[in-house]
Amino acid sequence: MGSLVFVGLGLGPKGCSVQGVEEMRRAEVRYLEYYTSPHEPEMLTQLRKLGLEMTVVDRGFVEDGSRILSEAAEKKVALAALGDPMIATTHNELRTRAIKLGIETRVIHGATIASAAASASGLHSYRFSRTVTVTRESVNRLSQAYHILHENLLEEAHTLLLLEYDVQSGEGVSPADAMQGLLLAEANFKRGVVGESTFVLVLSRLGRADARLAAGSVSSLAGRTFGEPPHCIVVPGALHFTEKEAVAAIFSLEEASVQGNSGPVLRTAQTLVPRYVAKTKRALEQVQGKLGHEYDGVVENAELYMRDAERFLAEGEDEMAMLSVGYAEGLLDSLSFSGVAKLEW
Amino acid sequence: MGSLVFVGLGLGPKGCSVQGVEEMRRAEVRYLEYYTSPHEPEMLTQLRKLGLEMTVVDRGFVEDGSRILSEAAEKKVALAALGDPMIATTHNELRTRAIKLGIETRVIHGATIASAAASASGLHSYRFSRTVTVTRESVNRLSQAYHILHENLLEEAHTLLLLEYDVQSGEGVSPADAMQGLLLAEANFKRGVVGESTFVLVLSRLGRADARLAAGSVSSLAGRTFGEPPHCIVVPGALHFTEKEAVAAIFSLEEASVQGNSGPVLRTAQTLVPRYVAKTKRALEQVQGKLGHEYDGVVENAELYMRDAERFLAEGEDEMAMLSVGYAEGLLDSLSFSGVAKLEW
Repeated sequence: MGSLVFVGLGLGPKGCSVQGVEEMRRAEVRYLEYYTSPHEPEMLTQLRKLGLEMTVVDRGFVEDGSRILSEAAEKKVALAALGDPMIATTHNELRTRAIKLGIETRVIHGATIASAAASASGLHSYRFSRTVTVTRESVNRLSQAYHILHENLLEEAHTLLLLEYDVQSGEGVSPADAMQGLLLAEANFKRGVVGESTFVLVLSRLGRADARLAAGSVSSLAGRTFGEPPHCIVVPGALHFTEKEAVAAIFSLEEASVQGNSGPVLRTAQTLVPRYVAKTKRALEQVQGKLGHEYDGVVENAELYMRDAERFLAEGEDEMAMLSVGYAEGLLDSLSFSGVAKLEW
Repeated sequence: MGSLVFVGLGLGPKGCSVQGVEEMRRAEVRYLEYYTSPHEPEMLTQLRKLGLEMTVVDRGFVEDGSRILSEAAEKKVALAALGDPMIATTHNELRTRAIKLGIETRVIHGATIASAAASASGLHSYRFSRTVTVTRESVNRLSQAYHILHENLLEEAHTLLLLEYDVQSGEGVSPADAMQGLLLAEANFKRGVVGESTFVLVLSRLGRADARLAAGSVSSLAGRTFGEPPHCIVVPGALHFTEKEAVAAIFSLEEASVQGNSGPVLRTAQTLVPRYVAKTKRALEQVQGKLGHEYDGVVENAELYMRDAERFLAEGEDEMAMLSVGYAEGLLDSLSFSGVAKLEW
């Protein structure tokens, strides 16, 4: 009776768990797949020291999966990958196929970059929100990453940006590329999410002997190189004082230079409502006391709804604030469209 | 010269990495701390098999930290904990203190429940958003958890709820308690976030030999018991078809019974914009072709902005959608206030 066990190798050559090693020892067929990290000969050396000879396979082999599944129907097969083995969608799909074929499957979990990055940074891991993957394809048009970063900063939460590395081509997104991409997105969306002074952490090769950590403003880091991948970037939201202390200690910085990035970030309505309220005020000044009394209702309501918009915004009712200020503007603009008043917005 | 190495033991008795075992072997003093999982004698047995005798300590010992720090000034000290060692704020703070005292520190990462839960569930880990911890204190008033779950479902993202376990008292939050707490929060906030039919996954003792997985509606699971802690619950957002397949295979369910929970959850603007668009349409019908040509501009613009509102909403630009529909309404209402048209909204 065969089986298929997915083994997570954790973060580096010695990252596999005791249970993972035992499972691989019991396996009759052993595959090692690299997919998001560069091939490390050290990995094979370490596994060999543990008595584990591995067959290195590529992503296509796992995606196809037919050989693995036919072997696993009769033999004990182990498929090992860095990190946690089920982080890769491909492995999840292979597991589903195996279960459907009646093959016993097991998963041996491993340390992942997502939890290690939180942990290595000195930040509180429960204060991280949604993780973003920056691919080579998306790096020049980081709209989704930018919007998730914006949401996270509004929640005062930290954001982990994983920078893609492609084993097949040997190419990846460098920390400099990713920071440049975020600045481009800022120039496009202008929500004040990221800028030259944004404080970020760059974590490279976490869990390896040559791991490298750097922290500072985007402008101070964007020109630097950080050696071999894998890399990730952490953008802190608001910082608890113990997080400040920890980051300062771990990255050898003065505490004063460690700063969160949530402070200056505004909700979309916080940017827009004051702008439209100011416009409405200017228009109101142009019509108040200058039109016939048949327009009193229009003018009074425009003022009332403009005030409502400010109140709704203060209460966090962003949608109602936008509706109200739009309504006030519409009331006044109607006078302009029908020739009753000439308004300069 | 001393040092302090924090070793993650991963998810169970055999969860420690090869590197972690090596570090503990080199250590002259070895502490093992339990803080969020019940004490497992099996853990000590397994570590002893690896030649590692451990001194079990409690949280107070680590929080105080004075003995660890004084020993680490001169000897190699290892402090081991389940999961990743830096997930605990206490360990982060101890590390900061050690660095400030000039003591060399290292972190050996371990598999964590946060990444393993994603991985074991068959869901795509990058589609998880903010994690929620349900404490015994908060379980009857889950407002924060409820709001995070709401936000996550709106993003169509999955949510991991970690259920607290307290080693000192031996008490914790059961899956039934947590589900009941969410239903109470729903009764209070009424946002349609969670109900009897919400589809959830309950993952117990992940990474252990006696791990137990269950999935189904809240009503079908809320009355069940799931054995010893630790437990966690996953509330899926929207499901990709490969996720549906995987959950069905892993939890032995019919695919049709596996369902996401984002469908019925709406953004505020998704509720409001269609309502105001419908009102504007009714008002437009009352004036189109019935007023003098001097009002053509007003009527045409009202229609254009109403369409803009629908388009903005579809693009997720909620604020602009509310502004536009408010503006359209204001344009038409101005005619009503100034007596040009009698509108019934």
